[in-house]
Amino acid sequence: MARAWHLMRRPNGMPVIEDFALKDYALPALGEGMARVRNRWLSVDPYMRGRMNDVKSYVPPFSLDAPMSGGAVGEVIESNDPSLAPGDMVLHMSGWRDETIEPASNFNKLPPIPGVEPQAFLGNLGLTGGTAYFGLLDAASAKEGDIVFVSAAAGAVGSAVVQIAKAKGMTVIGSAGGADKCDFVQSLGADAVIDYKAGSLVKQLAGAAPDGIDVYFDNVGGDHLDAALALARKDARFAICGMIDIYNEAQPTSLRYIARIIAMRIRLKGFIYTDYMGQLGDFYRDMGGWLASGQVKSRDTVVEGLDQTLDAFLGLFKGANTGKMLVRL
Amino acid sequence: MARAWHLMRRPNGMPVIEDFALKDYALPALGEGMARVRNRWLSVDPYMRGRMNDVKSYVPPFSLDAPMSGGAVGEVIESNDPSLAPGDMVLHMSGWRDETIEPASNFNKLPPIPGVEPQAFLGNLGLTGGTAYFGLLDAASAKEGDIVFVSAAAGAVGSAVVQIAKAKGMTVIGSAGGADKCDFVQSLGADAVIDYKAGSLVKQLAGAAPDGIDVYFDNVGGDHLDAALALARKDARFAICGMIDIYNEAQPTSLRYIARIIAMRIRLKGFIYTDYMGQLGDFYRDMGGWLASGQVKSRDTVVEGLDQTLDAFLGLFKGANTGKMLVRL
Repeated sequence: MARAWHLMRRPNGMPVIEDFALKDYALPALGEGMARVRNRWLSVDPYMRGRMNDVKSYVPPFSLDAPMSGGAVGEVIESNDPSLAPGDMVLHMSGWRDETIEPASNFNKLPPIPGVEPQAFLGNLGLTGGTAYFGLLDAASAKEGDIVFVSAAAGAVGSAVVQIAKAKGMTVIGSAGGADKCDFVQSLGADAVIDYKAGSLVKQLAGAAPDGIDVYFDNVGGDHLDAALALARKDARFAICGMIDIYNEAQPTSLRYIARIIAMRIRLKGFIYTDYMGQLGDFYRDMGGWLASGQVKSRDTVVEGLDQTLDAFLGLFKGANTGKMLVRL
Repeated sequence: MARAWHLMRRPNGMPVIEDFALKDYALPALGEGMARVRNRWLSVDPYMRGRMNDVKSYVPPFSLDAPMSGGAVGEVIESNDPSLAPGDMVLHMSGWRDETIEPASNFNKLPPIPGVEPQAFLGNLGLTGGTAYFGLLDAASAKEGDIVFVSAAAGAVGSAVVQIAKAKGMTVIGSAGGADKCDFVQSLGADAVIDYKAGSLVKQLAGAAPDGIDVYFDNVGGDHLDAALALARKDARFAICGMIDIYNEAQPTSLRYIARIIAMRIRLKGFIYTDYMGQLGDFYRDMGGWLASGQVKSRDTVVEGLDQTLDAFLGLFKGANTGKMLVRL
């Protein structure tokens, strides 16, 4: 028997533990062409909150009372397919569980990149780093010399944005909550850091960017988005990546500065990592180089054990992570 | 002596008559290279509300206790420059007054387009039609086959958007307030019309566009923008042209569906007519052709006399106009 987290009912607002259950589930037989994988690392990501609603979105909703899914890195234990051998490390989408048996085609063998640990494929070499890379450089068309503001800059995606922007010669202002996270953002090379718990975002951003901003990378929505609108320069570009502020809320977003979209000819663009699957070559090349040279560093918040997966997920909405939140099995 | 409307104090919210005064003002002498122009048509436009605030925006604020400005068509009465002769009709920016004396270079002689009346250069061949043309085709990248939603579709810009979209082979849904205006939008060729006074915009738009929308042309902001977010299809493009709902309000805009920017990869782009001054050739060619063929028709709401200019302007925010609002002197 394997064990997996199941969604038992649709959360109303912020999820609570009663919405979920960690249950045994039956693995299928190891048929021809299949492999058995034991998970070593599980990813928890804010976008998963959307999948808990019964709403058609860019990823289908989780089914009720069935194993949940998500990014994971595991080790092949048994294989009935020539493409995989025991000991191979693979990236796949059957997270939230300890073990799975599936067709070998569901598993992607990790490429051997020297000095890169397997869990990086859930972080800077995976959805997290790719979201930062394509959002900043494509959705926001950020270029050398731009003044970039990024919210949740101590988070998984945000901390990658800060480092990529610096590697590309941009000026970076990051926001984070509390002194420790602000110190972390500073340590990543940000030119200025704003503590969103320490007062008006608009005033703080105006202080950090007296000439305004060219690019905003939005992980948060709400007041952060409004402050970015307030400080946007002409032809500013916003990459809209996440709105963690409202994933759990029925409250509408209230924007005072939205009419500046017109005056400043601002462009806002929503995007999703999977839109860029055809351009992964560029990403692996650049990010691989930055990781090798140390221009981008990975910082993970690691939680131990399948039992703690839900806590790790809920922690995303309480600012419990610095860098990428991972579960080690 | 000439007469001109003066802004006497900055309005607080919706402007009131006490914020303005119609006063005599002294014309300069008709020096070398100058011309005297008597205005025949004055344009009043929603964007002028922004110029009444003391805020740096895409056009400078009106000075206090000085003649206001804005688009106008006038007739040359006297000229001390070889480029202009009495009887010439000119387009210029010294509206809100009956007469002006200025360097001849401030006046643009109207090109002789058969069948086009001079006031069209304040409407479909001017800022109004150009805003519709460049916003729809460039800012929103609208193309044949797209499902287009346009707010304030009975207004000056909106009614041009409806007709241009139909001329280009798009499906068009327009919103307007009240049965008369809805009938007018229908008469322009819209495939469906929504009366925003008749119930939930989201529900009405879902009914008119069961498969969603590809393009939204925003003249209004607020609930219209939110409904467009709610119904946007993947890769939808929004041209953000005006937010008449909030020009006079200190209230923030409240959006329930903003996170759909991410799920649907929506692009929003603010723009202003004057950004496209280098591309007027395309616009004159296309719009001239549509006006000649009757594919685009001009409908004006005409108010008589300089004394009524302020009422005409305030009427823009009360839905007093169908099509372009003009003042005839």
